[in-house]
Amino acid sequence: MKFTFITLFENLVKPYFNDSILKRAVDSKLIDVEFINPRDYSEDRHKKVDDYMIGGGAGLLINASTIESSILKAKEKNPNLHIVYLTPAGKKFTQNDAKRLSTKKEIVFICGRYEGVDERVVEQYANEVFCIGDFVLTGGELGALCLCDAISRNIEGVLGNSQSLEIESFEDGILEAPSFTKPNIFNNSYVPSEFLKGNHGRIQALKNNMAILRTKFFRPDLYLRLNSQNKRKKNEKQVH
Amino acid sequence: MKFTFITLFENLVKPYFNDSILKRAVDSKLIDVEFINPRDYSEDRHKKVDDYMIGGGAGLLINASTIESSILKAKEKNPNLHIVYLTPAGKKFTQNDAKRLSTKKEIVFICGRYEGVDERVVEQYANEVFCIGDFVLTGGELGALCLCDAISRNIEGVLGNSQSLEIESFEDGILEAPSFTKPNIFNNSYVPSEFLKGNHGRIQALKNNMAILRTKFFRPDLYLRLNSQNKRKKNEKQVH
Repeated sequence: MKFTFITLFENLVKPYFNDSILKRAVDSKLIDVEFINPRDYSEDRHKKVDDYMIGGGAGLLINASTIESSILKAKEKNPNLHIVYLTPAGKKFTQNDAKRLSTKKEIVFICGRYEGVDERVVEQYANEVFCIGDFVLTGGELGALCLCDAISRNIEGVLGNSQSLEIESFEDGILEAPSFTKPNIFNNSYVPSEFLKGNHGRIQALKNNMAILRTKFFRPDLYLRLNSQNKRKKNEKQVH
Repeated sequence: MKFTFITLFENLVKPYFNDSILKRAVDSKLIDVEFINPRDYSEDRHKKVDDYMIGGGAGLLINASTIESSILKAKEKNPNLHIVYLTPAGKKFTQNDAKRLSTKKEIVFICGRYEGVDERVVEQYANEVFCIGDFVLTGGELGALCLCDAISRNIEGVLGNSQSLEIESFEDGILEAPSFTKPNIFNNSYVPSEFLKGNHGRIQALKNNMAILRTKFFRPDLYLRLNSQNKRKKNEKQVH
């Protein structure tokens, strides 16, 4: 799979592929990464890409034409791009999106800076508009990297152990249970004794309980959804 | 403000401070960044930091003691740290947290890798446990960078124009309205004519409407909350 980043700041993104899991994915040709700089398509003699907002407002906006030219450049090599724009004013990106998008051939990330980009180029070109969370960043680069990382993990071969994909947070709509490693006692704190006894059915039952408690504590929204799903399942059973 | 990253992969984080807004913030001493590698505190002769999970499970976990030593190292210089652990199984980080944490003296980010870190060191040391969104990443580094970026933007002087903080997404619980810049016509698509007429009251009213519509479309959850708040306000008014 290929990821193309349309960004004014390649240096903020590129080094993330120089170490650890995504470096290995690039080295083994499971993913490929490319960068396009809208500044290279500026027709302004000072290579300006941004301008004041029409109608007033603080800050500058990247104009539509340099983003459009960057997209067309990517399309020269591959007309079937999946184009994603990152903005706090978008749809929430989830683990299901990470899985769904891991089957695409090429994803293009449009990374805004300043106050973002002219809405019209998003309307005309973007296939999806994603937000990673309810906070605002200085640019779209980190959001694009988060999507790229989350998607790449779901490409076969990128993670050493694909089993670890099955028992992680957001699978079955709950958070992952706490985990422990050696030593059995750390600063007077013990690993739960059930974990040491080796009965895997009971360990699994304890983990499930801990996962549900943690979800209730940290993510009451997910817990409520989980609860109403369980009720629905119960009702369906009673009907049959 | 100082940000300390406890990470096995400094190279994934450090380059983000070598360009754009956060570079300027470092250069003008508004923020300071430091890295501590748990591997430097491993007592294993192969500098191993991870081990199998007790009770079984796929993947490895960073042990508690190397993370503890890293935290104690940071505490030598400053005993009043605010320690944050990044994990999908945590509390959702929001723009309000970004503002609240922007007044801290020093924040330490514990970046997990593999299957995370031994729960006991989190329990004993972390002040907060944050998740950036409903998806899973290969490590805590990108989450830590997101928090660092979102928090830094709220430190006085980091953004050139502090006005731009007032009219952005999540202020007043809604998303930001679309924005437009020159030219007035792009690929047959016009800037809304009201924006060109210069009546700022009417432009603002149109922007508000567009912001509400966008929130309803992309974030029905925020829209519902907004609606129930408005109803409550209305009821309060009627009572008085």
